[in-house]
Amino acid sequence: MIHLSLIGIGTGNPEHVTLAAVRALNEADLILLPRKGEGKSDLVDLRRLLCRNLLDDSSAARVVEFDLPRRDGRADYLGAVDDWHAEIAEVWAALMATHLPQGGRVGMLIWGDPSLYDSSLRIAGRLSAEGQEVEIRVVPGITSLQVLTAEHRIPLNALAEPVQITTGRRLRERGWPSDAASVAVMLDSGGAFESLPPEGLYIWWGAYLGMQKQCLIHGWLVDVAASILAQRAALREQHGWIMDVYLLRRMK
Amino acid sequence: MIHLSLIGIGTGNPEHVTLAAVRALNEADLILLPRKGEGKSDLVDLRRLLCRNLLDDSSAARVVEFDLPRRDGRADYLGAVDDWHAEIAEVWAALMATHLPQGGRVGMLIWGDPSLYDSSLRIAGRLSAEGQEVEIRVVPGITSLQVLTAEHRIPLNALAEPVQITTGRRLRERGWPSDAASVAVMLDSGGAFESLPPEGLYIWWGAYLGMQKQCLIHGWLVDVAASILAQRAALREQHGWIMDVYLLRRMK
Repeated sequence: MIHLSLIGIGTGNPEHVTLAAVRALNEADLILLPRKGEGKSDLVDLRRLLCRNLLDDSSAARVVEFDLPRRDGRADYLGAVDDWHAEIAEVWAALMATHLPQGGRVGMLIWGDPSLYDSSLRIAGRLSAEGQEVEIRVVPGITSLQVLTAEHRIPLNALAEPVQITTGRRLRERGWPSDAASVAVMLDSGGAFESLPPEGLYIWWGAYLGMQKQCLIHGWLVDVAASILAQRAALREQHGWIMDVYLLRRMK
Repeated sequence: MIHLSLIGIGTGNPEHVTLAAVRALNEADLILLPRKGEGKSDLVDLRRLLCRNLLDDSSAARVVEFDLPRRDGRADYLGAVDDWHAEIAEVWAALMATHLPQGGRVGMLIWGDPSLYDSSLRIAGRLSAEGQEVEIRVVPGITSLQVLTAEHRIPLNALAEPVQITTGRRLRERGWPSDAASVAVMLDSGGAFESLPPEGLYIWWGAYLGMQKQCLIHGWLVDVAASILAQRAALREQHGWIMDVYLLRRMK
C-alpha cells in the first residue's frame, strides 16, 4: 500500500509552506522531486531548498529526483495532456516500485496548491485506476493568485461580487466571462489580455510571485498592457523562463 | 507609524498556518483578536490557541481581545456593510491609539485568506483614508475552498476549464453563471443550490473545514441536496453556528 501525499508548497517563498506541509514532508519515506528541464531549474531548486531546510534529522525521507516527461505540443490539447498524464503516472509507478517495493509513504511537492490548474490529482487517480493500492492525501498550499493579491494588497473579489478563475487560452477563445466583475488569469503563454477591449479594465500583474525576482505591475490596462508585455519578454530572456498571473477587474 | 499585518490563518486546522504567518505573529507588538459573539466562540478559541501555541518566549506581542461591532441586518446590504466597515475601522484605530500610541507592529489573525470574501483589507484602507499612517502587509493563508478540495481530494477546476467563485446570495439572484463548468459557493446562509435545476450537477460540500468537527458530503445534487440541508440544520443546532462552502460541477 502506497500512501501518497500531494503537498502544496506555495510558489517560491520558502516561508509560504504550512506546518502541515512540513510535517507531511518529514513523515514521508520517499520524496519524489520532478525535474522540468534546464529552463525551469529554479523550480526544482526551490524544491531542493525546501527539502534541505525543512527535513529534520529524525526524518527517514529519501529524496529522489526524476525527469518529468515532456508534453507533446500537438494541436489536440486535451489528447496531448491525457497521454502526458498517462506517461507521468507510469514514471511515478516505476519509481515507487523501485524505491518502496513494500509500500510506504510518498511525498510529492506540488507548486502552489494541488487543487488549482495542477495535474497531480488526476495523475494520482490513474495509479488507482491501474490497480495500484494508493491512498491519496492532499495538503493545501498557497497559490500564485494568493501571493498576487497579498503582494498587491488587494482582495481577489470586489465586495460581494464573484470572481472567475480562468486560463489565458480560454480568455483568448471566449473573451470576458459575462457573469464576473473580476477575472483571474493563470497559465497564460503571454498577453491574452490583449484580446480584450481594454476600456474600464484594471490589471494587477505579477511574475515569479513569492520569489526574490518577483515583479509587480498594476494600472489601467490601457496604460500598462504594453509595459507588461515588454517586461515579460525581458524577464523571460533574462531568466530563461517565466510564470506570471494576473487579476483583471472592471472598474469605473 | 503603524505596520499592520493581515495574517491569513486558515480555517480551523492549526497546522494550516504558514511559516510566514508564524513569523509575522512573533514579530508583532500587538495582536488584535476580534470576538464575534457567543455563537461563534469556536472561532475566537482557534485564534487564542494559535497565539498560545505559536508565540515563542522571545515574542513581545501583547494579545488584546475586542468585541467586533455587529452589522445591522437592513435590506440595503452594501450600505449596511459600508457602515459596518466604518465602525470597525474606528474600533481598530482606537485600540491602536490606546495600546501603541508611539506606533509599532500590529498583527490581525484573518480567517482563511485576507483576499477572499474578507473585509480586513477594505477596513484597513479606511484607516489610511482617515489620515492614519498605516503600512499594510498581507500574509496569505489557506482558504476554506482549498481545505474543501483537499479533503475531498479533488481539483477545483475541471481540466483546463474555468471556475467561478461566488456567494450564496449571488447564486440565488442570478442562477448558474453562463461561462463556468465549476462554481464554488461561499457565504451561503443555507441551500442556495436549491435555486438551481439539479440535473447534471455534482456537489462537494463541507462544513467546519479543517476543524475536528469537519463534515463532508458529496454526490449528485439531486441525490444529496436534502441530506446536506438536514445535516446543516442539525449541525447548526448542535454547535450554535455553522460555516460551510461547496463546489458544484456540471458533469455528464
